[in-house]
This record gives sequence, C-alpha cells and structure tokens, in this order.
Amino acid sequence: MLAGLFLALARAFLAGHTRNARHNIQLAAGQTIHSQVDVDLGDRSYPIYIGQGMLLDGALIRKHVKSKKALIVTNTKVGPLYSAQVRKALEQDGKVEVFEVVLPDGEEFKTMDVLMKILDAAMENKLDRKSTMIALGGGVVGDMTGFAAAIYQRGIKFVQIPTTLMAMVDSAVGGKTAVNHPLGKNMIGAFYQPDAVLCDTDSLKTLPDRELCSGIAEVIKYGLIRDADFFSWQEQNMDSIVGRQPAALAECIKRSCENKALVVAADEKEGSGGVRMTLNLGHTFGHAIETGLGYGAWLHGEAVATGTAMAADLSLKMGWIDQQLHDRTMRLFRAAKLPLTLANTPAEADLGKEEYLQRVQSLTRERFLDLMSMDKKVADGQLSLILLEGKLGTSVITSKFDVVKLTEVVDSYVSKK
Amino acid sequence: MLAGLFLALARAFLAGHTRNARHNIQLAAGQTIHSQVDVDLGDRSYPIYIGQGMLLDGALIRKHVKSKKALIVTNTKVGPLYSAQVRKALEQDGKVEVFEVVLPDGEEFKTMDVLMKILDAAMENKLDRKSTMIALGGGVVGDMTGFAAAIYQRGIKFVQIPTTLMAMVDSAVGGKTAVNHPLGKNMIGAFYQPDAVLCDTDSLKTLPDRELCSGIAEVIKYGLIRDADFFSWQEQNMDSIVGRQPAALAECIKRSCENKALVVAADEKEGSGGVRMTLNLGHTFGHAIETGLGYGAWLHGEAVATGTAMAADLSLKMGWIDQQLHDRTMRLFRAAKLPLTLANTPAEADLGKEEYLQRVQSLTRERFLDLMSMDKKVADGQLSLILLEGKLGTSVITSKFDVVKLTEVVDSYVSKK
Repeated sequence: MLAGLFLALARAFLAGHTRNARHNIQLAAGQTIHSQVDVDLGDRSYPIYIGQGMLLDGALIRKHVKSKKALIVTNTKVGPLYSAQVRKALEQDGKVEVFEVVLPDGEEFKTMDVLMKILDAAMENKLDRKSTMIALGGGVVGDMTGFAAAIYQRGIKFVQIPTTLMAMVDSAVGGKTAVNHPLGKNMIGAFYQPDAVLCDTDSLKTLPDRELCSGIAEVIKYGLIRDADFFSWQEQNMDSIVGRQPAALAECIKRSCENKALVVAADEKEGSGGVRMTLNLGHTFGHAIETGLGYGAWLHGEAVATGTAMAADLSLKMGWIDQQLHDRTMRLFRAAKLPLTLANTPAEADLGKEEYLQRVQSLTRERFLDLMSMDKKVADGQLSLILLEGKLGTSVITSKFDVVKLTEVVDSYVSKK
Repeated sequence: MLAGLFLALARAFLAGHTRNARHNIQLAAGQTIHSQVDVDLGDRSYPIYIGQGMLLDGALIRKHVKSKKALIVTNTKVGPLYSAQVRKALEQDGKVEVFEVVLPDGEEFKTMDVLMKILDAAMENKLDRKSTMIALGGGVVGDMTGFAAAIYQRGIKFVQIPTTLMAMVDSAVGGKTAVNHPLGKNMIGAFYQPDAVLCDTDSLKTLPDRELCSGIAEVIKYGLIRDADFFSWQEQNMDSIVGRQPAALAECIKRSCENKALVVAADEKEGSGGVRMTLNLGHTFGHAIETGLGYGAWLHGEAVATGTAMAADLSLKMGWIDQQLHDRTMRLFRAAKLPLTLANTPAEADLGKEEYLQRVQSLTRERFLDLMSMDKKVADGQLSLILLEGKLGTSVITSKFDVVKLTEVVDSYVSKK
C-alpha cells in the first residue's frame, strides 16, 4: 500500500510546480510521504507539510510537540474520525501526556464562551508555558485553538492539523486567529503563528462535497490576486480537483500554501495597505453575505465566491479589468460548483426554501452596505476594497472606487424592495 | 501655581538620579512639567512620562492618540475623579470622538466577562483598526484595557494613564496584559506594549494610604533584584515616600521605571530563565497568599511584601544571603508599612477578624504549596523561584532550592494544623 501511495504522490509532486517548495519526498519505515512549504518569518518560521498518512506519523508530529503535555482541540464531527490516530501518534514514545477537548461543530460556536472551554481544559489539566495545543479540524477549530494558544499564559506553542480544504489552503496558514463577536466576524483575535501545519489529504476523504468546493474559492483567489499560472492550471484541472484526484488536490494545496507563505512573509500583520490585505479579495462582500444571511446559511468559501464575483463586477464597471478576465473568473467559480448569486444556493436545501428566502429578503442594499462598513478593513472611517486591475494575477487595495457603482453592484445581488 | 510646581519638580529632578532618563523639563503655556523614561523595543519603543498636570495636557495626550475615535476605559472609583479631565484634554482640538466604558472596581472583576464589556463598547461604537483605547485607572484597568486592545481586531493602539503607584512603577510598564481565570491569576493574556504611559502624580493625591504602600512593595523589589543604590536611597527616603512628598514620589517612580524599562528591553517576553523573570521576586509566594486568602483580603503589593520576606527567608536558609541583608530587607518593608506575616494585617479590618481568621486557617501548608505549583513559572512540571544570592541587588532564577527548607519557610507563615 505504501508503495502505491509513494508512486501516486511522487507522480503528483514531480509533475508539480516547484517554485518556493522544498520537496522532502521520503519513505522511512512505516512513515509518510510529504512535500514541505516553509513560511519564512525569522525565528517564528515554520513548515507546512502536505501529504498522506501523516496523522499516524508519530515521528513527524513529535518533531513539533516536544512538551510533556499536549491538548488536542477538535470538534464533535472531526474528533470521532481522527483524534484517536493523532493521540496514538503522539503517545507512541510514551513521553507526552495527551488531553483532549471536543467543541461543538459550527461557525455559530466560534465564540468567546466556547473559547473558554479550551482555556478551562488547559487550566484543569495544568498545562504550563511549555505545553502544546493541537488544532484538529477545520477553520473554526484552527482559529479558536490558535487564539487560545495565543492567550493561554500569554502564549504557548500550537500545531495545526487542518482537516478541510479551506483550512489547508488558507486558514491554518499565516497566524490569523480569532473568535466572532455578536456584531462582527473575527473581531476578537490575535496574530499568532503555529509551530507547524500538517495537511494530510487522507482527512479530506470524509469532507462533504459542498465543503470541498467552499475551500476551492480560496484556491481560485490566489490565482486572481497574484498567480496567473496557477489560475490557468486550475482552468485545466478543476474537474480533477472537484473529483478529488489525490495528485490534483496535493498540487492545489501546495501551490496555495506557497502563495500564502510568500504573502504572509512579506506582511505578517496585514499592515495598512500591505500586500496581505489582497488575500481578502471578495471577503468584505462575502462577510456581508455571511453575516447578513446568518449562521447556518452560506459556507465561508461560498460567500467568498459570490463576494469575489461582486468585486469582479465592480472592477469591470470601473473599467479596471476587461470582459474576458471577468468571464474567465465566473467560469472558473462555476466549474468549482460555487454559487454566484444569492438565489438557488445549497443553503436553501439546509434551511428550507421559505426560511432562506426570508433571510435573503431582509438583506437589503442598506443593510448590505452597513455590514460592509463593519469590516476590519475600515480604518478611520474609510473603507478599502480589494479589486482586480489590469491583467490576470493583479489586484489593488483601494478606497478610490465609485460609490455609485458599488451601490449598483450591490443592487444587482440583493433583493429589490 | 505653575511656577511653584516647576520649582518643586525641578528640584526633584535636578537632585535625582539621571542614568537612563532623558529629562524634558519644560514649561510651555498652560502645559506640564515632566521627565521621560524610554522603553527601548525597536519599532515598538514608547515613552513613559512622569510629572504633574498631564491629565489636562491635550497636546501631550494627542501626541499619542492620533485616531478619530478613542475609548476611555476606567472604573467606578477612578472615572468620577479623572475621566472628565482626560476627555477634555482629548477633545480640545475637536478632532477625536471620545467614548467611555466604566468597569466595576476590584480584582474580582478582572475576568473574561468584564473584558467583554470593553470589547462590546468598542464594537457598538464602531472602533476600527486605527482607533485607540486609553486605560485610566490602576493595575486591573490597565491589564484589562491592554488585553482588550491586544485582541480587538487583532490589536489596536493603547495608552496607559495609571492612577495608582503600583500601576505607575510596575503594571502599566512592560506590556504584560491579562485577566484572571477562576483557577489562577493572570492566566489569560498577551504581551502587548502601550504606545505611551502617562504617570501623573497629581492622581496619587486621592490614593488611599494602604494602596500607596502596596505600590512601594514593587519599588523595594527593584532595589533588591538589581539596584543596590536605589535600595539605599529608599532606606534614606522611605518616610518621605510614605509621606507623599512630591519630589520623593517622582524620584521613586522614575527610578522604578528606569529599572523596569531596562529589564523589559532585555527580555520582553520573559523567556525561560530570562532576566524578566527576576521581576517576579516574591510573586510566586505572593500569588499563593492572594489566591489562598481570596479576593478582598490582601492587596497585590502586600502579598508581594510578605512573599518577598518568604523568598528572603529561603535565601537565608540556603546560605545564599547573610543575616544583615535579610535584616535590611525586613526593615525597609516595615518602614513602608507593609505586612510581613499573615496575622495582624489591614485585611483584617476590611473583612472582619473572624472571616479573616477563617481564611488564614484554611491556608494550610499543602494548599499553599499547591497554589505555588499553579504558577506560570512552572515549565514542564518544574517550579523555578526568584531568590536572592550574594550581595544586595543580585537575584537568581533557580529550581535548585531545597524543598525541605521551602516547606519550613511556608510552615513558619501559614497556620499550624
């Protein structure tokens, strides 16, 4: 079986894009195959491993969990699937005492109250300054565990083991941690880097299709803002990604992490006007959709897809991009089975058509613009947006858009009075 | 009046100790007189101003509050005394919108729930990434405001305006921010530096005697751990400090801040075995006293005083200091009217003798040692203590103390069975 794995992955990596990545293809006894992308942040640099079989690789995990105590933080969905594997890997040399806290699953539990459950578990089990927290789950688990690690005893080590595509290509990398405030998403948090990120594509096998596609929205984003080659590669391989071909998945995670690593290394704390802000393409619109339609409706990546469509619309209206680039963008989102309108989305099925339509109707132009103004990208009252400008792979951070055109774009998405 | 102020302060500063401090004695129209100590942390360096009349000095405050929105965080005791002054100073040029949140007063409110009130006020008033928080109060207000600023939108600017001696000489300087967890003090927090610290000795006029003396415990600490000259100066001037002579107060704040600034610059995040840990002389014992006797009993500085006496006792028992240094230490704490035993303390008066005695009786040797083991200075299960060794002004961070001798010291303070 390992030999088969090796061949499949080796093929993927050798065919792959090699900029910025150190390839550590290796096959030690009972161990894993992975490639590595490094996030270069001086004495806070860390590796991202991408491969298969890593959840069981005690040697690899213990390389980054050297403490006497470790706390696995997971949720009710992911915990039963993978935490026994991680625990076994950690415990195999008998040198680390492993505790676990299981959070409820879902964005609506990304709150300060639930965060306290992690901190309570840390206190009750007497974790100290040298202990490690391990995030095992998607973006919500990763963001909350990272934030808990950032503030427990003013900061302890933590390792990310993302189990969703969204977390592997975006949220687990780069040190943004947070919980939501009732009045806004991710409003309470910290910049706090992990000590390692382990992206085991085996854990994607249990990921629902809708969540896989949600993650692809951020993959497309990297192409749009800074990597035209990667965008073209996606145009040719989107069916393989959506179809979960291991080689395509590994490649799209690796190239996404390479892009994110370079951006984060250049602008770790998202300075005003800094390049890291470009990672928020579509996110100001997207946050308004997510918050406006309420928890349990849209997934983050779905909102980012429609939000990016809105950003592309505004860019086109401003005359900053041509129709062809706009068309290619929409086509790629559609190939990734992502929604580009508030009507007819997967959320309808989850909530029921009536409940969903009621929510859409309450999201008026005024409410949408008000939600946009609550974004963290507002500084001293001025809203900046990330928009596309020029040829594929180029984005701008600007407050110089036409507010009338912005309103027209919003009008074309939200419900008319 | 200003001329009088000038003379008093100029005398203080000219007589004073000049290492490490830039003296900015100045007398602009309607402005203040102050000296300045800088905390050197690269691009996060900031000034500490020490003087009088600064709460009314709009130009000085606005130098460090350049945002369009500012949130004053204060408490029910300090707010009514000083927040109108600070608000007036901030608003005098009409360029900043000022909001205010008033917290309940007391260490028992240093909780995550109360912290959320600051974050709620920030959200409700739409503070953004460029806004500023202003801590106006003692250590609890400063620690909580700093932590709120650290995690609001992943970090915004904040200014410390300490109104207690304890906060001026210790907690407002150096970037340690935190709230308490039910199972331990300051267990949830961040290292987050302010943009400026304004120590206005005018605000000490309303400080109760007991709180003034509590602050002196940390002043004595600087002498013991690293500044023999300052210790000797205190031996000669303790009556003037306790008697609130402005020159003596200004000098003791300035020299304390100089010491703290140098330690923090050398070891900002209290690395394992780093010099910043020495600032915790007496604190592991002290935290056990504070937590063991419960909120509303001892003040922090009182507990540090007795805790330092315990550290000095253990140092003497280990043969690391001589009897003479031990005697001088006890004498100086007594001159500062600080308690050196769990019996006959000011807490008795506050709680009632019976309630207080009950609490003391519940603080057994076992409980005391258990509380010490919850300290943040435990790493991978090993407790380190800050102890005195050699001549005055020298301290060590060590786990090589004799546990039997430690137990003997604890026994000599806590209630016998």
